[in-house]
This record gives sequence, structure tokens and C-alpha cells, in this order.
Amino acid sequence: MFSFDDSDTICAISTPSGVGGIAVVRVSGSEAITIADKIWHGKPLHEARTHSAHLGDIIDPDIPGETLDTAVATVFHGPKSFTGENVVELSVHGSRWIQRELVNLLVRQGCRMAGPGEFSQRAFANGRLDLAQAEAVADVIAASSRSAHRLAVSQMRGDFSRNISDLRDKLIEIASLLELELDFSEEDVEFASRQHLHELALSLSNRIGKLADSFSTGSAIKDGVPVAIVGEPNVGKSTLLNTLLHDNRAIVSDIPGTTRDTIEDSIEIDGVLYRFIDTAGIRKTDDCIENLGIERSYAAIRKARIIIWLVTPDCQPTHYHALREEIKRHMSEDASLITVVNKIDTAISPTLNLETIYCDGIIKISASSGNNIETLTAALQHHSGTTLETEDCDMIVTNARHYEALFHAQESIKRVITGIETNLSGDFIAQDLRETIHHLSSITGEITTTDLLTSIFKNFCVGK
Amino acid sequence: MFSFDDSDTICAISTPSGVGGIAVVRVSGSEAITIADKIWHGKPLHEARTHSAHLGDIIDPDIPGETLDTAVATVFHGPKSFTGENVVELSVHGSRWIQRELVNLLVRQGCRMAGPGEFSQRAFANGRLDLAQAEAVADVIAASSRSAHRLAVSQMRGDFSRNISDLRDKLIEIASLLELELDFSEEDVEFASRQHLHELALSLSNRIGKLADSFSTGSAIKDGVPVAIVGEPNVGKSTLLNTLLHDNRAIVSDIPGTTRDTIEDSIEIDGVLYRFIDTAGIRKTDDCIENLGIERSYAAIRKARIIIWLVTPDCQPTHYHALREEIKRHMSEDASLITVVNKIDTAISPTLNLETIYCDGIIKISASSGNNIETLTAALQHHSGTTLETEDCDMIVTNARHYEALFHAQESIKRVITGIETNLSGDFIAQDLRETIHHLSSITGEITTTDLLTSIFKNFCVGK
Repeated sequence: MFSFDDSDTICAISTPSGVGGIAVVRVSGSEAITIADKIWHGKPLHEARTHSAHLGDIIDPDIPGETLDTAVATVFHGPKSFTGENVVELSVHGSRWIQRELVNLLVRQGCRMAGPGEFSQRAFANGRLDLAQAEAVADVIAASSRSAHRLAVSQMRGDFSRNISDLRDKLIEIASLLELELDFSEEDVEFASRQHLHELALSLSNRIGKLADSFSTGSAIKDGVPVAIVGEPNVGKSTLLNTLLHDNRAIVSDIPGTTRDTIEDSIEIDGVLYRFIDTAGIRKTDDCIENLGIERSYAAIRKARIIIWLVTPDCQPTHYHALREEIKRHMSEDASLITVVNKIDTAISPTLNLETIYCDGIIKISASSGNNIETLTAALQHHSGTTLETEDCDMIVTNARHYEALFHAQESIKRVITGIETNLSGDFIAQDLRETIHHLSSITGEITTTDLLTSIFKNFCVGK
Repeated sequence: MFSFDDSDTICAISTPSGVGGIAVVRVSGSEAITIADKIWHGKPLHEARTHSAHLGDIIDPDIPGETLDTAVATVFHGPKSFTGENVVELSVHGSRWIQRELVNLLVRQGCRMAGPGEFSQRAFANGRLDLAQAEAVADVIAASSRSAHRLAVSQMRGDFSRNISDLRDKLIEIASLLELELDFSEEDVEFASRQHLHELALSLSNRIGKLADSFSTGSAIKDGVPVAIVGEPNVGKSTLLNTLLHDNRAIVSDIPGTTRDTIEDSIEIDGVLYRFIDTAGIRKTDDCIENLGIERSYAAIRKARIIIWLVTPDCQPTHYHALREEIKRHMSEDASLITVVNKIDTAISPTLNLETIYCDGIIKISASSGNNIETLTAALQHHSGTTLETEDCDMIVTNARHYEALFHAQESIKRVITGIETNLSGDFIAQDLRETIHHLSSITGEITTTDLLTSIFKNFCVGK
């Protein structure tokens, strides 16, 4: 098990890699200011007040007289810094040469190169952020849509953590009442009325359950809503994908079966990221490559949160129903099906009035001309379940680790409820309560292990 | 002619484009602090002292309650800022989303997106940097070798400009003496002894000439030293290129004539960038594609500063001399030829002892084993003429515009000298002196035009 030495002073380039106007190298640790002063010509940084910026020169003490760069150094005294330690941020010209040389120079003066996420990990270790907040820093940096960004910022600011802490506090309150009761067990008093406990536990279980359930919405927002575009060959699936993406992503032709691979691409619509999957047309065929493609179409249906099923107006009723059943058979339980009739402006004599068969929610479009596509995108938003108010952000779980903890917390609080209902003795109930508290505490990091921290921060970028 | 409005408050992402731990958006202009305050929740920035950093939230006033990011704002009051104007630097989390939204938000609050190099252009307009220093900012950012970096930093810090200003001051001194003389021309006095003037002009012409001559060294340092590797087919040119680059850049085979294109790649050796050009083997052939390649070999020789000529130990004396003449015929005047005998450890019976023919400077190597390559790289450094001391940095011209101005300055100071020698009347000499001063002034930007500024700054990156 590899773990970092917290007593080292660390440094890293914190800005995106590459060439730019300026780049920022961050130094953090007890020796940050002392080390920076060794290469700093200007007002001595150890005399600088906290949160002050200074113009000066960076000079390698082993090559006096040769200025590496003219820079701005900003000094932050711990604990009022991002990491809670002394921090110096050196803002230099953004050439690859300067960035590389400055880090090398700092290392020669006694810094260690920071590992991935090590600044955030120190912020957590020093109590500047709880674990869920520190995890959200990486989500903020990776967020690529408005809604994913909102959720991540809200979590980074601690909204989600406060919700978890509130739940935890209530559980601790019940647990202490029960444990007080156990201390006086010989006297057979009941500090906590069983009915009151039952009500409280039910309400908390309800809240935990809702949070756990929000994970499917949360991950759809964070990673994008998976949407499978399915239908028979040549109904215009690839044309629809291209129209939705405003791009020529998929090869389109009149020949049925043009698409063999599943083609995937993402676009943000009204702040939500959708991951569209264009699939091979579903039909009986002897072409074994095409059949492999059709297998993948079913796999895409299973994984999708929304299925756009494309039909043409000449579809026969029996065939229509058979296809619909086939698709529904592969859909996951909580997925939505949107039935879309394509080619409305080219089909001349529709043999089928689909509205008489399946009145609700049929959307008529022309994928090639873009006609009525906005009705389809509105339906996507409706079915994505991702419309949320700012104040709901603290109620959404986006992190698989948090989901797992909530899932376990839900299991143990259910045992608490059953325990109360079956008049189980207080110490068994208290044991299950403590387990629930343990799981909730692991989310915000009151309880943690080095293994866990390593696995969380290893996916961060270096410099954050 | 497009030119920027200097009264606007401008903003841009100043850090490299992409995702990273943090990104910095810079705002500059008279309204910088006022505009930043509109989106800032925290200590009001207009109350902040200069050079102070503050933690706060960035919130779109049109979407209150939704935090775009938690950020650090650093306030710089003009004229003590990079641009000389009020500047706010917003250091945010480096997601693409936040960077894009923050710039959009600032634009909605009254900023204009900065054009390329507009911050540096304002620094020049406000007298924070002269023109040569501002130009060097772009060179600092682009520098990719130690020596190119040193030159650019020295120029950015004003060493080169001080040298030019010193020349200019001396010329102005002579010019004022001459002009004073013209004011009293009726009295036929000579304020400036012609002999003294002549000595001064000669010494200044000498200094200007040296500076102009340094451009070939300066551009070799800035852009890399062009080195052509030439020789007959199958003497091991591509093997040598690969060995020098520590890479398998060129395809190597035993078949003579494997290389047809000229292959180019760069590597830094002891702080200097070398651009090696592997050429097609020079021989008489009927293969017209190969002949085109050979033509390109001659073109490479013409452009190279150093030619590495590879021969094998079995080369016949007459042939050796003929080849040598052929190469020398194509070399530019100030280029150096390094003769290298390859395959020293595989050739069994050398029919020619090359040292008896051409004693000096023959280097024996084995390109395939790397044997004695360090002697060759030492010779490269020797012939590159790029070894310079830190204190010489102010004597080197790296910028084509500066070279052109020095070239014209040299022409006019030569006319001054001839004028003195031929006893030309003082007002003609004064006219040529003024022209010399004009050319030197254009380097540091005492004299400039909007066209010139536009053409200089358009090649900068946005955000600097």
C-alpha cells in the first residue's frame, strides 16, 4: 500500500497542461514559504502577509544572475488556504520550458512532486473539506454540462454533506437515547418511546431510500442520459442521430443495414448531456455481421434510460405490435420508450394510422428535414427525469461510493425498524443503528481508511 | 484596418486551454473591479487593497442562488499591474464548463473578449513594457530550449532594449550638437569636431553592425540550428539521425536510396535546439523520384548552418575530393562543414586513410553503435556559434523586425560616416542621423504605427 507523506512540502503545475499566457505552480506544506524564498528575488515571502501577491524574479540559486522568469507569487498562510497548510502560488509565463524548469527547481530546493489529488487530500486531512466535498472537486473539474456542473458545485460547497450529517445527527440522537436506556437496563425504564423511535426510523429510512434512489438520476446527470435509437433497418436512425447532434456523425445511405456498429456521441440539450446510441436496424437476417450488430442493439436497449423507437408510417399493425413487444422485452424496468414516426413528409400513402393504435405520445418527425425535432427533444427532457431545481441538488447522489454506502445504510435501518416492530432488545437495535451511522459517516469521511483515500484520490488530476 | 478600443474592459482565459486543477481568467480595464464585483459574493473587491487575494463565490446576478464556482480573486490596482490598468485575476476550478461560462458571464456584465496579445499591447500602450519587451513576452511563452528561453527572458526584462536605447541616446547627442551648429550656421562655428564625430559614428556603426550580424545566431537559437546530414547513399545518414534523436525517426535499411524525402526532427543538446535534416543520398541515378530527393538534399545544404558530411572509410581519394567540392559549392557562405567517417567498427580494410588527405576535424564514429557520437555533438556545439554567456544576451537579435530596423540603421549611419569623410554639409549629415535614430526607435516602439502594432500582436495567444 502506497501512501503519501503528509509532512513533505509538495508542488505541482495546477493549470491545464500545455502552452498559454500564464501557468500556475502551487507549493503547499510547512516549508512552502521557506522553499519559495530560496528561489525568489523580490520582497521576501516570509515577510509577506497572507493573501498577498508580489512581483519578483525566479532565480535558481545555483545559477545566480540568470532569471528563469519574472513572476507573481501569492502567499497564503495556513490554515486559511485551500490545503490548510502554508501555500505559495507562483504565476509564471506559460511556456513548457518555464513550467518544467520551475517544478524541477522547486524539487531541487526540497519540494516533492505532488501525487494526483494530493492538494485536495490534504484539504480533507486538515478539515478544510469533508470527503464528499473533496470528491466533488474532481467532479467540478470534469463536469461537461450545466446540470452536472450544478450538482458538483453544490456537493463541493457541502450541501449534500449537510444533508447526510443531518441524517447522521438524528440517528446519533436515537442511538444515545437507546444506549442510555441500556445503561439503566436493570431499572427497566424506557427513555425512548418505541412508537416515537419507530416513527423516526421510518422517516429516516424514507429519506435514505430517496437518496439512494436518486443515484440513477444523479449518474444520468453526471455521465449523460443514455438514449438508444432503435427500429427496423432504413427507418432513418442514423439520420436522426446526425440531426440531433447537428453533425454528420453516422454514415447514412438508402441501403438498409448501413449501420453495423453501435455509434455513440453526446450532446448537451438544455443543460443536460445525452449520450445517443445509434444501433443497427432490428430484423431477421442471415448476415452474421449484421446479426452481431443486432445483438448489440438489444444490449443498447438494456442499458438505455430512454429508447427512441423509430417507425415509418407504412408499418403494419401486427408487425408494429410485435416489434413493440420485442423492444419492451429488452428494456430495463425504469426506462422510458418514446415512439417516433419518421419520414412524415416523404411517405405518400401511409397504410397505417398509428395514432389509432397507440394514441399517446407518438411523435411525428422528419429526421432528414429536422421537422418537429423540438417535440422529440422536449420529450427527451421530460423522460430524462433530470429537471431539478437548485434547491434539490443536495438530494441527488452522483457518486457510486456514496450510493453503496446509502444502500448499506438502508439495509441496516430496515433491520432497526423490524427490530422495533418485533420488540427486539435495545442492544440489538442499537447495534444496527451504529451500523447505519457508520455507513453514513463513511460518505463524509468521519470514518475512513488509507486504502479508501488512495483509491479516491488516485483518479484526480495532478495539481488539484 | 482593425484596431482595438483601449477604453474597453477586456477579459480572457490566460491559462493553457484544456482541463486542469485551476484556470485563471484575467480582467483588465478601468471597469475591471466594478464588473468583477457584479458577479462576486465575498468581500467587495472595490474595498480590497491592491495585490490582495480573496476567497469568494462567483454568481450570475441573473441566476441568484446558483454558484458558478468558489474562486480566488486577486486585485491589482493600475498602474502597478501587468497592463498598467486595474486588473482582477479570477482563479477558478479548471473545467471547460466553468472557464467558458465565466468568460460569457463577464461579457454579459460589460467586458469585451480580449484579442490576441491585447493584455501585452495595453502594457506597451501604458508604458509598462517597451515594444521589444512586449514582443519578447510571446518569445518567452514559445521558447522550447534553454538558450531560446534565456534570450527571450533577457529581452523581456529589457536588457536588449537598454542596449538599443544607449545607442540611440549617443546618436541623439551627436545630432543635437550638429543641429546646434546649424542654428549658428551663419557664424561658421563647429560645435562638434568632425574628427570626434567620425570616431563616434564609426564606433556606433560598428555596434549596430555587430547587432545586425548577431541575427543569424539569434534565429538559430530561437528557431533551432539547421543541420543537414548529407553523403552518398548507404553511408548511414538515417542511422545517424536516429542515433542523434535517440529515436527511430527515419526508416533504415541496407538498400541504398531508402530515404527519398528529407526527414526533419529537432532535439535539444546542451540547451540548444538542433533541427536535423536527413537527406537523400547524393549520387548519379536515373530514378527520377530519387533525383528529386537529391535536388532537395542540395536545397537542405543551402539552408543549413552546419553540414554533417558522412563518408565511409573505403571512399576513394579522387571521389572524396569531388564530393567535397560538390557539397561546398552548395553551402551558404557562413555555414560549417563537419566531415564524419562512419562505420569505423564494421569496415574491415579501409582503402583510404582519410586523415592523410584531410587532417583536421575528421570525426570517426559508428552511427549504429553510437561510438564517439559525443565528439560529433561537441563539434556541433562548437560550430553552432550559440554558446553565449548570460551577459551576452542583450547583444543578440532574435526578431526579424529588429534585424530589419538594424539593417536600415546601419545603412543610414554608413551615409553619416561617408558624409563626414566627404565634408558634406551639417544638415545632410543631421538628416541621416535622424534616420538612424528613427530606425532604432522603431525597435523599442518610441515610433510606431497602428498597422505595425496590429501585425505584431496578432500572433500572440489570447489571454496574454
